[in-house]
Amino acid sequence: MKHTPDLLTPAQLAHSLQLLRQQKPLVHCMTNDVVQTFTANVLLALQASPAMVIDAEEATQFAGFADALLINVGTLTRDRRDAMLAAVQAAQQAGTPWTLDPVAVGALSLRTAFCQQLLVLQPAAIRGNASEILALANQAPGGRGVDSVHQADAALSAAQQLAQDYQTIVAVTGEVDYVTDGRHTLAIPGGSPLMTRVVGTGCALSAVVAALSSLPGERLQHVAAACRIVSLAGENAARKAQGPGSFVAAFLDNLWTLEVAQ
Amino acid sequence: MKHTPDLLTPAQLAHSLQLLRQQKPLVHCMTNDVVQTFTANVLLALQASPAMVIDAEEATQFAGFADALLINVGTLTRDRRDAMLAAVQAAQQAGTPWTLDPVAVGALSLRTAFCQQLLVLQPAAIRGNASEILALANQAPGGRGVDSVHQADAALSAAQQLAQDYQTIVAVTGEVDYVTDGRHTLAIPGGSPLMTRVVGTGCALSAVVAALSSLPGERLQHVAAACRIVSLAGENAARKAQGPGSFVAAFLDNLWTLEVAQ
Amino acid sequence: MKHTPDLLTPAQLAHSLQLLRQQKPLVHCMTNDVVQTFTANVLLALQASPAMVIDAEEATQFAGFADALLINVGTLTRDRRDAMLAAVQAAQQAGTPWTLDPVAVGALSLRTAFCQQLLVLQPAAIRGNASEILALANQAPGGRGVDSVHQADAALSAAQQLAQDYQTIVAVTGEVDYVTDGRHTLAIPGGSPLMTRVVGTGCALSAVVAALSSLPGERLQHVAAACRIVSLAGENAARKAQGPGSFVAAFLDNLWTLEVAQ
Repeated sequence: MKHTPDLLTPAQLAHSLQLLRQQKPLVHCMTNDVVQTFTANVLLALQASPAMVIDAEEATQFAGFADALLINVGTLTRDRRDAMLAAVQAAQQAGTPWTLDPVAVGALSLRTAFCQQLLVLQPAAIRGNASEILALANQAPGGRGVDSVHQADAALSAAQQLAQDYQTIVAVTGEVDYVTDGRHTLAIPGGSPLMTRVVGTGCALSAVVAALSSLPGERLQHVAAACRIVSLAGENAARKAQGPGSFVAAFLDNLWTLEVAQ
Repeated sequence: MKHTPDLLTPAQLAHSLQLLRQQKPLVHCMTNDVVQTFTANVLLALQASPAMVIDAEEATQFAGFADALLINVGTLTRDRRDAMLAAVQAAQQAGTPWTLDPVAVGALSLRTAFCQQLLVLQPAAIRGNASEILALANQAPGGRGVDSVHQADAALSAAQQLAQDYQTIVAVTGEVDYVTDGRHTLAIPGGSPLMTRVVGTGCALSAVVAALSSLPGERLQHVAAACRIVSLAGENAARKAQGPGSFVAAFLDNLWTLEVAQ
Repeated sequence: MKHTPDLLTPAQLAHSLQLLRQQKPLVHCMTNDVVQTFTANVLLALQASPAMVIDAEEATQFAGFADALLINVGTLTRDRRDAMLAAVQAAQQAGTPWTLDPVAVGALSLRTAFCQQLLVLQPAAIRGNASEILALANQAPGGRGVDSVHQADAALSAAQQLAQDYQTIVAVTGEVDYVTDGRHTLAIPGGSPLMTRVVGTGCALSAVVAALSSLPGERLQHVAAACRIVSLAGENAARKAQGPGSFVAAFLDNLWTLEVAQ
């Protein structure tokens, strides 16, 4: 680890959350088949506006409207790769910040090559688990399917290096989340083990990162706030839930009503 | 506005709902990636039978079995467009009524050209928000992503013209829904703001419109009943829900148990 | 019927469930668009690990990691067929057990030809409703869309023949489920009518069958346990639910906490 992480203050969290609800960013999501509904509902519960546009030509046009773009390679195909690349290039040209979720990168060749290709196209933020961030930084061969086999702190150095090399914000999430721009790092403890028993909590977090990346002000702080918003709603929901089924409803309700004491 | 809207009577609503539950129409849904599960669950909660068949050849065959076809262009691609077109043509030939949901039509070129092409293939019904109906009638450039930037009554004239030009039923939905065949118009007040914080309520409504379009009797009344069934279940669910997460479960439960006092 | 079915004992059920939670199999799901989220959440609630990898090349690579593969033809396209075939061949080569869910096989030509082609590639298990199993055994033309028009016991002979011919386990599910290897048959009563008002309960069951097929020991017993785990959670959830919406949450919660008295 290159430096000791700081904590996000409640005031910073409250500021980012309030700004998100005021600005209601339109988030263009090119994400995987499994998490589309949940991702949209998470954004809607936070007052943001999701739009899933996937055709290459339409996705290119949509870069002109959207406030942010999310690229998630979970169920990548060659066609989707080409459409995503076109969308990223259009976003870059329009100055729309875009976020990468490198799901299961490492062992699978199509997505690994594609994520490496995307890295040089200036993502505003990258959000992954420890195995994904290590694989993206070429420091490990990836996890077991979509699950991490590493702890987040094991990937912190890789995250810091990646952030420096590509001048981006990297969020490596796990029991503790770390968000870094390569010079400063914020640590976000919290969350609940139940969040790993519901599909798409990580993918939805990446969409929230994309939404908050579009806000004016300190992006490092906004991305850390995204992590804390999701982990806080997760903690609250887990206290109320009887299992992963009731967790989903409680989690969305909690995002909707979330208040942060400053 | 060309004429004053009437209201749907409770007796008409009860009749359509009862007929739906008796006939249990098999609804072939070619819809977007984001709302597939919710759409299927909404139809199932109303005793209808959803089937998502998407390959061009299979979709063509399926037109012979289905009672109704839904075309929703939310996550259109070129391949899906071709399969949808084949399905619509087969439905037309088989006399199967088909419904169009022109999601985000206007600014995005692939879907705009496709929806214009579909209009001449005699849809039984069209369901969209104000921006979509205005764009479909070439009277406005479309909304902000999937959300409307217009109120439903602003699109009423366009809806009436569209219905007359293409001899179809147009439902333009918003805080008040309007359903018109170009000569008569029904106004359906109700619903809940929480419905806009859950993805797919509009798309699922279009599936319910498709289901009810297949019933014998007055189609204008059936489509208005579809709007009222969904808005009524939405009102009831919103009273019970703590947020958009618990709303989803309450909404489906409500569709399942919905009773209409005549 | 060729022989009288036996019952699964509580001890056998408890053993399979415990083994599943210990082994946490990684299940590669190539399934239909409508049920992806629910399928993943059902596996997660049972401590298994779902992964949806769909590109032909990546799916081939993933066969080396996964403990089991699920093939569900619900929203088949030509591209998906080719990717599924590649994945099955890789699974076969790697010795990874794979399970077939022949959704709506019979009347639709693409999937019918494909499922016949797959039969000779040694599936570890096949799970379908009565109409699907009859159609797969060439004894009936299939159901009405995705719903069965036959009772499970009407398909028992076909299931037994199919199991013998292809040396596999066949689960034909309905009000009573039957699981057979062609020589022995287990009958699993239970479940709830509410399970047919939620999309994906059958498809998710097939994923659970795939997960349990990967466990060491008696596969016939494990597949029967899969059916009973799902029907038991369904019964419990139906007692608590007010309709199909609250059923979904209660069902997942129940899978999570399910205990079996031995």
